[in-house]
Amino acid sequence: MAAAALNVLGSRAPVGLVGLGLIGGSIGLDLQALGVEVRALVHRPATAARALERGLAQQVDTDPAVLEGCDLVVLALPLDRLLEPDPALLAALPSRAVVTDVGSVKGPVLALWQGLVPRFVASHPMAGTAEAGVEAGVRGLFQGRPWVVTPGSGTDPTALVVVRRLAEALGARWLCCGAEAHDRAVALISHLPVLVGAALLDAANRGGVQAGDAELVRALASSGFADTTRVGGGNPELGTLMARCNRAALLEALSLYRGALDDLEQQVRDGQWQGLAAALAQGQALRPEFL
Amino acid sequence: MAAAALNVLGSRAPVGLVGLGLIGGSIGLDLQALGVEVRALVHRPATAARALERGLAQQVDTDPAVLEGCDLVVLALPLDRLLEPDPALLAALPSRAVVTDVGSVKGPVLALWQGLVPRFVASHPMAGTAEAGVEAGVRGLFQGRPWVVTPGSGTDPTALVVVRRLAEALGARWLCCGAEAHDRAVALISHLPVLVGAALLDAANRGGVQAGDAELVRALASSGFADTTRVGGGNPELGTLMARCNRAALLEALSLYRGALDDLEQQVRDGQWQGLAAALAQGQALRPEFL
Repeated sequence: MAAAALNVLGSRAPVGLVGLGLIGGSIGLDLQALGVEVRALVHRPATAARALERGLAQQVDTDPAVLEGCDLVVLALPLDRLLEPDPALLAALPSRAVVTDVGSVKGPVLALWQGLVPRFVASHPMAGTAEAGVEAGVRGLFQGRPWVVTPGSGTDPTALVVVRRLAEALGARWLCCGAEAHDRAVALISHLPVLVGAALLDAANRGGVQAGDAELVRALASSGFADTTRVGGGNPELGTLMARCNRAALLEALSLYRGALDDLEQQVRDGQWQGLAAALAQGQALRPEFL
Repeated sequence: MAAAALNVLGSRAPVGLVGLGLIGGSIGLDLQALGVEVRALVHRPATAARALERGLAQQVDTDPAVLEGCDLVVLALPLDRLLEPDPALLAALPSRAVVTDVGSVKGPVLALWQGLVPRFVASHPMAGTAEAGVEAGVRGLFQGRPWVVTPGSGTDPTALVVVRRLAEALGARWLCCGAEAHDRAVALISHLPVLVGAALLDAANRGGVQAGDAELVRALASSGFADTTRVGGGNPELGTLMARCNRAALLEALSLYRGALDDLEQQVRDGQWQGLAAALAQGQALRPEFL
């Protein structure tokens, strides 16, 4: 092959992807559309074959040697596999490559990986996750979505620049904060809603069954109930993994949530209708700030 | 006028509507399209003028005498006005008319109104309520939606038949249950989600402010947070009114919800990840039953 021109990331080397699920596959599709050469490591031969058919990368292999020559490697793995990395993967990562991840919890990932590779950048592209697997990747997934990076004291600033180029090439909004602040924020706006919605499903079920009204409760549930429980009724493995990896921040968020619910319940109990209306009006005013 | 033919409700008399907001206005539009004569009582002259412009009824007046000659009157009023009815309205209701309401809590409405008029039917057409006021009424609002009636021991069965004809003419699904069962069910699937979502907004706000991360928390909130808080960030007057009129059932629902949340929190606290995954899997399996 003739010497390649500089690509949109300012490099002549290919990008390596580890994992071709929703996030990895979507990165692969977008990068190739931008003229970047993409090589990918996957777990199973059947995934490799299907990924090649879908064109998620130019080369896909189950042998970590496929990553050779890459100067940027994106670990698009589930949190558990990220936190207990395969030794063969570690051995195959090019020693000077910038390595980044896409995990939804950042503290433990940063703590582990900054000791494993010299140019690690902890990052979290926040894009929809309703689909999973090799069929899930789509073009334009990151367009306008936050791409959060959480550099540590040891993070190489030149590596951060490389990941920023990647995020911006994919159309994401670059956001930089501490890992602890990130994990606290996602506990509040992403992990807590899972438990809140799951508890609501459980309560509606228990209440209906106890009163012998299970069918009536189901028949009367409408779009409000459906919306409130959407993430609570989502993928249980993903929910558990997030709780496991972000336990302390989630427990803190739960404690705040209990306080807020206690206040509302007390107003109902005491018939403080003006106070309740004021609290609900505050919620109504707050919500657009989060949209 | 020449003697009218029997209309779709099996009557020659007009239908009276009290209130022309989302529910009243929508009933007026649909009934007229079905060839039924509709007369409406509203509070303010400006509303009457606009309602006539919109064609929500053939006659609209602020004088309760407009209801004269109606053999079915639908009280499409907010719960508070329904529970403290205007004496002039009571005096104007034709003595043999079937009277029904559209309130979202049924116990107190039935208790009051079955003592006020001889042919009262407590009912709750469950249709979307994001819009309100004289501009809100639309055609087809009740199509495929539940129309719940909660007859009491004194409810006239012939009056129930009239309301059933109305519900079915509007395309709604007829559902009959006790007022207590209705109020327990809506506490679980409609009123509890308001408090659950409002508490989540409050917790996310408090958590962000306490940590000095208020902006970050807002920036990272995505569609999952938006969905979980949609009804919690809704109309505060409506939420308060529902809590006030359905307090006992709402407190019972809150107690069940606390139990469910306690169980989930305990699993997170104890690191019982298999138990947590099983609980979340139960939620995932339950949710489609409510849709």
